Amino acid sequence: MPTSSELLPSWRPGATRDAVVGFLDAAAAVPLRDRLACLDNEGTLWCERPTYVQFDFFVDALKTRAGQDPNVAEVPEFAALLTGDRQAIATIGLERIATALAGLFAGLTPAAFNAAVQQFMARATHPTLGRPSRSNTYQPMLELVEALRRLDFTVAVVTGGGTEFVRAISQDLYGVPPEAVVGTLIEYEYRRGDDGSPSLLRSTGIIGAANEGSAKLANIQTQLGRRPIFAAGNSGGDREMLEWAVSGDGPSLALLVDHDDEAREFKYVSSAETFAEPEPITDVGRRLGWTVVSMADDWATVFAD
Amino acid sequence: MPTSSELLPSWRPGATRDAVVGFLDAAAAVPLRDRLACLDNEGTLWCERPTYVQFDFFVDALKTRAGQDPNVAEVPEFAALLTGDRQAIATIGLERIATALAGLFAGLTPAAFNAAVQQFMARATHPTLGRPSRSNTYQPMLELVEALRRLDFTVAVVTGGGTEFVRAISQDLYGVPPEAVVGTLIEYEYRRGDDGSPSLLRSTGIIGAANEGSAKLANIQTQLGRRPIFAAGNSGGDREMLEWAVSGDGPSLALLVDHDDEAREFKYVSSAETFAEPEPITDVGRRLGWTVVSMADDWATVFAD
Repeated sequence: MPTSSELLPSWRPGATRDAVVGFLDAAAAVPLRDRLACLDNEGTLWCERPTYVQFDFFVDALKTRAGQDPNVAEVPEFAALLTGDRQAIATIGLERIATALAGLFAGLTPAAFNAAVQQFMARATHPTLGRPSRSNTYQPMLELVEALRRLDFTVAVVTGGGTEFVRAISQDLYGVPPEAVVGTLIEYEYRRGDDGSPSLLRSTGIIGAANEGSAKLANIQTQLGRRPIFAAGNSGGDREMLEWAVSGDGPSLALLVDHDDEAREFKYVSSAETFAEPEPITDVGRRLGWTVVSMADDWATVFAD
Repeated sequence: MPTSSELLPSWRPGATRDAVVGFLDAAAAVPLRDRLACLDNEGTLWCERPTYVQFDFFVDALKTRAGQDPNVAEVPEFAALLTGDRQAIATIGLERIATALAGLFAGLTPAAFNAAVQQFMARATHPTLGRPSRSNTYQPMLELVEALRRLDFTVAVVTGGGTEFVRAISQDLYGVPPEAVVGTLIEYEYRRGDDGSPSLLRSTGIIGAANEGSAKLANIQTQLGRRPIFAAGNSGGDREMLEWAVSGDGPSLALLVDHDDEAREFKYVSSAETFAEPEPITDVGRRLGWTVVSMADDWATVFAD
């Protein structure tokens, strides 16, 4: 059987890899039921810059729709997006824009939405890296997911993005089945068709709160039924989840990805939004004893081939 | 490799077993992602008469509490339950009683509630069958669950009962992990402890609607992310789920357990509550082409040893 560090060839030797290996080795003694790993998606498992891939998907659908129907470009939310008018976007507000974008897919069944995402992902490319968007997953994180799975962890993707968007790609990209994706949930309308058979159709509302911050805890418990002992994230929206993961007595690990690699990916600071006085999330992580991953120093490879 | 009928030794040969075997054989050609099986719990996987086991659990906790604190018996909801006053129970209403009972466990963490259920289940016995409550699972259904799992189905328990109650026993009883239990969800309060670490504590409210009827569809989609192609149930609360399971084009099966076995279990008629004019759910099932299981005729064995 390979050792834990042999399972992580894209991680450079050092304190970060030692902490990960130490956790994996200790986790082998944890009861099976408690082996739950929760990983954020954007910026943790794949690239989130310059824009979220889910946002690209919505704007792509909007452009198609505007090409078919000129009236679409007259809707203020859509006009702001299509012209890239940042001032108008700020004035309208992200909530109204998100609702308008969700309206593009209102009335679809979950299966039809799933197919639309998969069609987009088959052709989407990253605007600056010149790679297919679907290949912008981080190789070291894929290795870590596989190492966790070899230890019979339930590996879940816990995303601030739309649950159904991530479900459409999670099996292919991460080997994560739909039930292990926890995100922001769209509300469905229940209908009976003309033949009497029941179905669910997408609405424009969401259930509860967007899946960020303390909402991640509530949604993990609701959907997965237990506290993780491993959590990985990269932003303020992951803070409570990482703190929760290390709040028990047994082996646990909170892993924070620091985007400090301008050469191979992007360099940016995420703030820990739970503070009134903005503080970089990496500072919070170091203060709380999390394992902070330097993309530039700790990863020999960034993207999967 | 054993044939599907060899995997179902407690099912008597006949049209019902043929329908189940036919589905299992056809399902081997279904894409893996679509292999989702949803089974109701009470009356479908285990005995629900004379009272739900979850109700027994709450009343047991109530009696313990009343023994420690005489004031508990003065609460009208509890007094009605402790004296078995059906008139008072009807006047107060099930919703107020359920909220009062949930209050017995308010403030507990999910892990502490889980432990309380497991302690109860280790000692609970059925009031008339003289068997441990935990052994009142139906052997033919356990065989069917195992046959589905051999085909790499995701097997989910979709219960009208409390999600967290069923999660505490689903792995041991059915091999179903917490993330594959879909039920009525308790609401949690988010707290930060004195040491700053976050946690979730049970409240007395529920999230959304009780998991019956069309709510089962919404909660299956929310939590598991797809439509089942196999569903099993026994009452009006399962109707929409069974209809949904057979609404697609590929192989599918809707299985309805008919409690017609007074000698070995119980004999009773469940009504299809979605009709104003009450109609037995078995009549609905026969009309819609579901496979109706006669416990008396189709099962050689009822309970697991």
